[in-house]
Amino acid sequence: MKKPQTIIGAGLKNIPWEERPVNKLDVIWRYSHNPVIPRDAIPTSNSIFNSAVVPFRDGFAGVFRCDNKRRDMNIHSGKSADGIHWTIDPEPIVFIGDPDVIKMEYRYDPRVVWIEDRYYVSWCNGYHGPTIGIGYTYDFKIFYQLENAFLPYNRNGVLFPRKINGKYAMLSRPSDRGHTPFGDMFYSDNPDLAYWGRHRFVMQPKGGWQSTKVGPGPTPIETPEGWLLFYHGVLTSCNGFEYSFGAAILDLEQPWKVLYRTGSYLLAPDAIYERVGDTPNVVFPCAALADADTGRLAIYYGGADTVTGLAFTQIDELIEAIKKDSDV
Amino acid sequence: MKKPQTIIGAGLKNIPWEERPVNKLDVIWRYSHNPVIPRDAIPTSNSIFNSAVVPFRDGFAGVFRCDNKRRDMNIHSGKSADGIHWTIDPEPIVFIGDPDVIKMEYRYDPRVVWIEDRYYVSWCNGYHGPTIGIGYTYDFKIFYQLENAFLPYNRNGVLFPRKINGKYAMLSRPSDRGHTPFGDMFYSDNPDLAYWGRHRFVMQPKGGWQSTKVGPGPTPIETPEGWLLFYHGVLTSCNGFEYSFGAAILDLEQPWKVLYRTGSYLLAPDAIYERVGDTPNVVFPCAALADADTGRLAIYYGGADTVTGLAFTQIDELIEAIKKDSDV
Amino acid sequence: MKKPQTIIGAGLKNIPWEERPVNKLDVIWRYSHNPVIPRDAIPTSNSIFNSAVVPFRDGFAGVFRCDNKRRDMNIHSGKSADGIHWTIDPEPIVFIGDPDVIKMEYRYDPRVVWIEDRYYVSWCNGYHGPTIGIGYTYDFKIFYQLENAFLPYNRNGVLFPRKINGKYAMLSRPSDRGHTPFGDMFYSDNPDLAYWGRHRFVMQPKGGWQSTKVGPGPTPIETPEGWLLFYHGVLTSCNGFEYSFGAAILDLEQPWKVLYRTGSYLLAPDAIYERVGDTPNVVFPCAALADADTGRLAIYYGGADTVTGLAFTQIDELIEAIKKDSDV
Amino acid sequence: MKKPQTIIGAGLKNIPWEERPVNKLDVIWRYSHNPVIPRDAIPTSNSIFNSAVVPFRDGFAGVFRCDNKRRDMNIHSGKSADGIHWTIDPEPIVFIGDPDVIKMEYRYDPRVVWIEDRYYVSWCNGYHGPTIGIGYTYDFKIFYQLENAFLPYNRNGVLFPRKINGKYAMLSRPSDRGHTPFGDMFYSDNPDLAYWGRHRFVMQPKGGWQSTKVGPGPTPIETPEGWLLFYHGVLTSCNGFEYSFGAAILDLEQPWKVLYRTGSYLLAPDAIYERVGDTPNVVFPCAALADADTGRLAIYYGGADTVTGLAFTQIDELIEAIKKDSDV
Amino acid sequence: MKKPQTIIGAGLKNIPWEERPVNKLDVIWRYSHNPVIPRDAIPTSNSIFNSAVVPFRDGFAGVFRCDNKRRDMNIHSGKSADGIHWTIDPEPIVFIGDPDVIKMEYRYDPRVVWIEDRYYVSWCNGYHGPTIGIGYTYDFKIFYQLENAFLPYNRNGVLFPRKINGKYAMLSRPSDRGHTPFGDMFYSDNPDLAYWGRHRFVMQPKGGWQSTKVGPGPTPIETPEGWLLFYHGVLTSCNGFEYSFGAAILDLEQPWKVLYRTGSYLLAPDAIYERVGDTPNVVFPCAALADADTGRLAIYYGGADTVTGLAFTQIDELIEAIKKDSDV
Amino acid sequence: MKKPQTIIGAGLKNIPWEERPVNKLDVIWRYSHNPVIPRDAIPTSNSIFNSAVVPFRDGFAGVFRCDNKRRDMNIHSGKSADGIHWTIDPEPIVFIGDPDVIKMEYRYDPRVVWIEDRYYVSWCNGYHGPTIGIGYTYDFKIFYQLENAFLPYNRNGVLFPRKINGKYAMLSRPSDRGHTPFGDMFYSDNPDLAYWGRHRFVMQPKGGWQSTKVGPGPTPIETPEGWLLFYHGVLTSCNGFEYSFGAAILDLEQPWKVLYRTGSYLLAPDAIYERVGDTPNVVFPCAALADADTGRLAIYYGGADTVTGLAFTQIDELIEAIKKDSDV
Repeated sequence: MKKPQTIIGAGLKNIPWEERPVNKLDVIWRYSHNPVIPRDAIPTSNSIFNSAVVPFRDGFAGVFRCDNKRRDMNIHSGKSADGIHWTIDPEPIVFIGDPDVIKMEYRYDPRVVWIEDRYYVSWCNGYHGPTIGIGYTYDFKIFYQLENAFLPYNRNGVLFPRKINGKYAMLSRPSDRGHTPFGDMFYSDNPDLAYWGRHRFVMQPKGGWQSTKVGPGPTPIETPEGWLLFYHGVLTSCNGFEYSFGAAILDLEQPWKVLYRTGSYLLAPDAIYERVGDTPNVVFPCAALADADTGRLAIYYGGADTVTGLAFTQIDELIEAIKKDSDV
Repeated sequence: MKKPQTIIGAGLKNIPWEERPVNKLDVIWRYSHNPVIPRDAIPTSNSIFNSAVVPFRDGFAGVFRCDNKRRDMNIHSGKSADGIHWTIDPEPIVFIGDPDVIKMEYRYDPRVVWIEDRYYVSWCNGYHGPTIGIGYTYDFKIFYQLENAFLPYNRNGVLFPRKINGKYAMLSRPSDRGHTPFGDMFYSDNPDLAYWGRHRFVMQPKGGWQSTKVGPGPTPIETPEGWLLFYHGVLTSCNGFEYSFGAAILDLEQPWKVLYRTGSYLLAPDAIYERVGDTPNVVFPCAALADADTGRLAIYYGGADTVTGLAFTQIDELIEAIKKDSDV
Repeated sequence: MKKPQTIIGAGLKNIPWEERPVNKLDVIWRYSHNPVIPRDAIPTSNSIFNSAVVPFRDGFAGVFRCDNKRRDMNIHSGKSADGIHWTIDPEPIVFIGDPDVIKMEYRYDPRVVWIEDRYYVSWCNGYHGPTIGIGYTYDFKIFYQLENAFLPYNRNGVLFPRKINGKYAMLSRPSDRGHTPFGDMFYSDNPDLAYWGRHRFVMQPKGGWQSTKVGPGPTPIETPEGWLLFYHGVLTSCNGFEYSFGAAILDLEQPWKVLYRTGSYLLAPDAIYERVGDTPNVVFPCAALADADTGRLAIYYGGADTVTGLAFTQIDELIEAIKKDSDV
Repeated sequence: MKKPQTIIGAGLKNIPWEERPVNKLDVIWRYSHNPVIPRDAIPTSNSIFNSAVVPFRDGFAGVFRCDNKRRDMNIHSGKSADGIHWTIDPEPIVFIGDPDVIKMEYRYDPRVVWIEDRYYVSWCNGYHGPTIGIGYTYDFKIFYQLENAFLPYNRNGVLFPRKINGKYAMLSRPSDRGHTPFGDMFYSDNPDLAYWGRHRFVMQPKGGWQSTKVGPGPTPIETPEGWLLFYHGVLTSCNGFEYSFGAAILDLEQPWKVLYRTGSYLLAPDAIYERVGDTPNVVFPCAALADADTGRLAIYYGGADTVTGLAFTQIDELIEAIKKDSDV
Repeated sequence: MKKPQTIIGAGLKNIPWEERPVNKLDVIWRYSHNPVIPRDAIPTSNSIFNSAVVPFRDGFAGVFRCDNKRRDMNIHSGKSADGIHWTIDPEPIVFIGDPDVIKMEYRYDPRVVWIEDRYYVSWCNGYHGPTIGIGYTYDFKIFYQLENAFLPYNRNGVLFPRKINGKYAMLSRPSDRGHTPFGDMFYSDNPDLAYWGRHRFVMQPKGGWQSTKVGPGPTPIETPEGWLLFYHGVLTSCNGFEYSFGAAILDLEQPWKVLYRTGSYLLAPDAIYERVGDTPNVVFPCAALADADTGRLAIYYGGADTVTGLAFTQIDELIEAIKKDSDV
Repeated sequence: MKKPQTIIGAGLKNIPWEERPVNKLDVIWRYSHNPVIPRDAIPTSNSIFNSAVVPFRDGFAGVFRCDNKRRDMNIHSGKSADGIHWTIDPEPIVFIGDPDVIKMEYRYDPRVVWIEDRYYVSWCNGYHGPTIGIGYTYDFKIFYQLENAFLPYNRNGVLFPRKINGKYAMLSRPSDRGHTPFGDMFYSDNPDLAYWGRHRFVMQPKGGWQSTKVGPGPTPIETPEGWLLFYHGVLTSCNGFEYSFGAAILDLEQPWKVLYRTGSYLLAPDAIYERVGDTPNVVFPCAALADADTGRLAIYYGGADTVTGLAFTQIDELIEAIKKDSDV
């Protein structure tokens, strides 16, 4: 008898995958050849991290945060046959749109999601302060930019992969202008991808690894239990911020309602490329691939604000772990 | 021959008024019996300030920030026959609306404006941080609350008195969660009073009295020159913030374009009730009455975060002064 | 039929007193000739405030914080026939005791209380940081100093006027070394006035006027309802700290249990000598006289860290007000 | 002829030991197989560090700080035959005691010491802020908790291994509530393990590696020269705190008198497990084993707030080095 | 027999003067008609304070800090017949000099001194940060600007009234770029008014009123005892900085050697115009007139960064007081 | 035909050198055996970094920052035959000079330069705060100290290798007293190595890697294009400062005029000895050797405030790269 699918979505036969190491008990495990994308995958880059990938045609495409050697932050498109070996465009994405809006100050921490007929990109967009930029593409060659979603100051705008109650929906983490020492997650919806409203509080920091701020990570993944959301959490040590990540399950129709939320982190900095880099002690997930047929998930995350790593999990195990450890 | 009206709007015969003192050269002058509203105008109040009034029937009505002796911040309605002697409701306003939205954390710094068929109120609304609350009333007795305009963190949401290009329009000053040390002014519009977007940068701090932050004050006043906007500016001394106010003229159809802006302040703390109070050295304007027939303006402003003062100016003189001193 | 006494204690016929002003509704009212002690009551003083008085023989005695013109902080004894006109010793108190302990760094914010057979003085004592000094006197001429009650860093050590469960008892507010931005109140007891322990949490900041820190004020007053404790609360504005005071009622036998606590402040800075001085916007109570026969209370408090004021209340009214406004 | 013992205490034949590496001149040297306890020695742990061990029966026992993957801080017991290979209880210690006191907020940085008839444990205990918790055990299975030693805010409470002048004695480092930027060491004594007093200043920061704060490390070791105390010191770089350690010799009868104190550190972060981890650049000693017969010392210390390391020294050489480099 | 002159210098018959009030014991007393210069003595000024005056022809001239209503800081010349009634030029001083150097960013807190053949002016000069500007005039009409004395960041450059050891000499207080939380006084000399060097430390903060920073005030006054230097000191309260002033006596030939220094302040904020203004609680002296014949001194000082006050003292009494209270 | 020399200066046959690694495109490349000087090259050192070398006789000499195990900062001389293997004097340099000036507080970050007839050393010198010390030597055995160049607070004083317009010239970076969060570069000149003046602004931070502060590195190298200046830039991440370096070309006769300046860094922390150490993420150049015959440059830089590294470049390529990437 066929097991009902846990992931509501399509199969993805060529999802990058590696079995869990023997003797490893954690629900999430790292790819053994991490980092999958080194800091210098293009000649001008200082670092490539906090980036987003999606299935595209018979392979994968993505939008990558590439800080160049000026330490300007920008986003580039890239392609891969296997999700592991990537060719990143050495030139940043150029957007088509309203000249007032497309003016580039800085762009970083992109997310990508397929909704209905195209790929939407959202990112932290410099417009007199950080806010949420939105654009779309059909082919990862030509990109169109829409109005910024919100007033500054905001980061980590993450679109849901389908309309909810007939509206586009986004999670985000309002901020200040600097290295913000606080961060709650909010939900907003939108009838037309132009005007946003009906903002609802979703979650705030708790103790431990998620005591300073929490923000949405990859595009939420639909499951019968609710939206599976990986999210980052920040702890402040006497030597600065430490970024880990956990997961929550949000109500399918009222996603501002948190049904479950990991008390423990799922992944915290441990590998040398997560501990050492331009910002020590950071793992920061921005994308996840899902294969509905096998329940496999492949999570892309930034390491130490310098490189991109890959980690794996199996959704049934993961959901069980989230529910068991939940501490809403 | 009749001079063309400078104020685009109605006459207001009973506007509060006092002539400029002899020997006084400043464009704006204080009411000699300030403060018009003392800190204890209702029995429970610690302070009444940063409040908004409008013409109402044959007198005036308003929404007042009354901090009680818990130092809870809330807004109360009030009435006056002459704009000077006020009766303020000892109970705060109770809003009708979506239970998720009307839940009271705190409310402060209201503005009131007549648009089309009713009075709209906007204020700094506590919803997991400060944001912009919006409501309306027909009679200053029953108040309805709409969705918050923006995600936190924001203050000083000020509606324009008519639609611009077919849309409701608002100025605001995005902030952080505390005593924000920065503040730029932005413009947003809205097709339906529910969803906001098309956010545009308007102005940022410059030197001197307006070097730390700037934010919109009373409802803009329409003139043939553009929208007359009083705005507050903040300077940081070694003993904290000092709030003064100046004025700008914004383009009528593209109000995010600043045509003129006072280099000098128009009013800065000097009177004892502006210098001494719960927050020393604050003048903070939230409302202005205008008489189109005479060009008289009466400005209500908070003094030292404790009381409400009144100041006067004549619009033609004022606009001339703004243009002469302009430093865009 | 004689009403049961609300104050458990002796009568005090000559308690300073002034009737409540007509038209004044507040439970506590200021003495009309405040400040009772000016900043320069002795030739060397910069300021005299946050001081403590008790009935003594047929008049009153006290211990006064006198900051001199070096701005050194020290404590002086004083005497008064009527509690209003004070003669303060121009020389600071010299203590007799263990040389390691009596070494003077600084002394401030004294409290005085009669327990059993003598007057105990407690104060903020500089010993490699602020901590709680304790001493005693029989005559306000000769003073003996005991061991410091606690490790640094602490302020506002306030002794109860009798043993509780056979032990001396003290409230205090642990701090850091500077202008501490936090402050909870704790209870400790002591078998012998030498060793302290059994520390229990009492209360922490809430919103509004008491949102930054709370600390004990005058010696608690015993009533059938519990210990009446005036306490200060601090709010942080963008221009610094503002000190107000309210009151709580603590369980008689387990004084770390708060039975009632004012949501609203009882007295907040308003008079010019509370608003303007070395630290603007401070009222800080350190002593209260009580007349059990009439229920009258006279509260001494520092104004703007510069002068000493006096305020009055009637205990039955006060307790009723505390219970009505209570927000534990 | 037998050399007089430098360590006043028992022999410890099975003390962990490794000879000093050839070509290594430092007085203290690291164990070549460090870390002795990895971050994941129990399944739920994020990190195991700043922990304490003692001889127990014919092996060793200890109390270990295990932060779990929530980053909750707690203490666990553990056992070892050789002091190197440890079995740590996967469940935290459960204390028996007064319900008001044993309520768990957080527990960290334990020390363990044998006094008279049992093993005492002291640790940083969350009770409305960090303070010093005390408990005891006879068998490392059943643990009893006593009253907290002090009011908050305090860390690093370290008991002496015997009564001094008939009193129990403790060193500690009063603090604030966060990542305290200051730290002096104080001495307190106690007649009954319930009430503490007679607090005396011991030492404060000096320059260099110990310029920000200093605090006691392992239980002091009695020698004819005085109490040998390893202590940590903190330097503030532009990237945060760096923790090293040195040693002092305290007067035997008046241990608040510092006879000698290392000008140079004895061990500072250098190995990768000290440089890289949840808090980079930390070595933090919490326990030392001593073999009176050979003068060998084995020091357990936390590395980078993540793992536990072991280092060795020979007491005669060490004392000579301390005296030579002393800079009191 | 004629008493030897205490002030080494000329008589000044028309020095402003008012006798010490009866019952007033302080060595320095305020002018009863303070402030001598109100905030609006010229039409564009927001405030006039921290200004310098000298005898000029048969009256007085000065250089005044006038912040305009933009809160731009600039310096203006002024004249007076009696030192009390001043006519200040409504236009700021225009300097002649090297175009790279005279470029105006901001100018404030001037001092003026006669050396040999002309009046030298020094002030805090904006040149990519605050530094010390120097200029001269013969007539208070035409002003010439020289090179800035030092690299940024510096304030309060005060020239000695004659060469010392054949060199021009200056006291100053190096700073940072903002509201500097530290301040020591240094001495520098100069062979040619172009190149400065031989920098020597003079004095640093001590406790109390002078615990945060100290800086030179008026031009030092030569006496047989040494250079009489009024200097400001700053204390940090929880509501910001408080500025008072005291005096020191510096060695005549090695002025970096402090012979005496007041432990107590001489004047601290007390009058309402010193307590209340743009910066509450500031007295800041920038000039002193001296009459060698009578020993009278008239000190000009800024009040609350808003107005200019005048205070008086008699030099023999003052020097005696400094020596008696000295605490070097 | 002989190519015109790009480096104006002498040949240096024995310049340390290693060819650019194959596949490496960056203009600057690291020495493959870095660090050339380990942290413990002398027995007492905690770290050796930010140091300066010059050709000396037929080999090399240098002045090295050696922080000892007290973490005292001092400078030592050293010698090398090949510029790679160094013998550093275990004793710090002792200076001969004015006792007021040579008094040692701390010394760090030296530079060395040959001017006319001797080697000049400049360093950050503790004199009541950091300032610029200057000394000279003929033989790296006997060192003479001159007056400090400037008032505190300053760092990174770098002398030009010849007089400019007849004057000695220096670049420096004025600072505050701590981990300064700002930093502009200035130019000063000097007729006699005693008195400094004619201070001119050179450059300030821009975006990215050089957004917090910029300061001069090695002695400028004369070329026909102008002075080649390597300079460090600092970026502030949420975990502290990150130091990289770039280069500028300054006008030969007016060196405060910046002709070209790299938009991108030339070298940023990447190697483990740059990422991990007492201050993570630091590369800090203090010296460069140049061979005019080949155009080779060898740059010495500090790694992570712990060790000394070496990097190479070829001047023609470098200048071309600077000009191409220039963003003045």
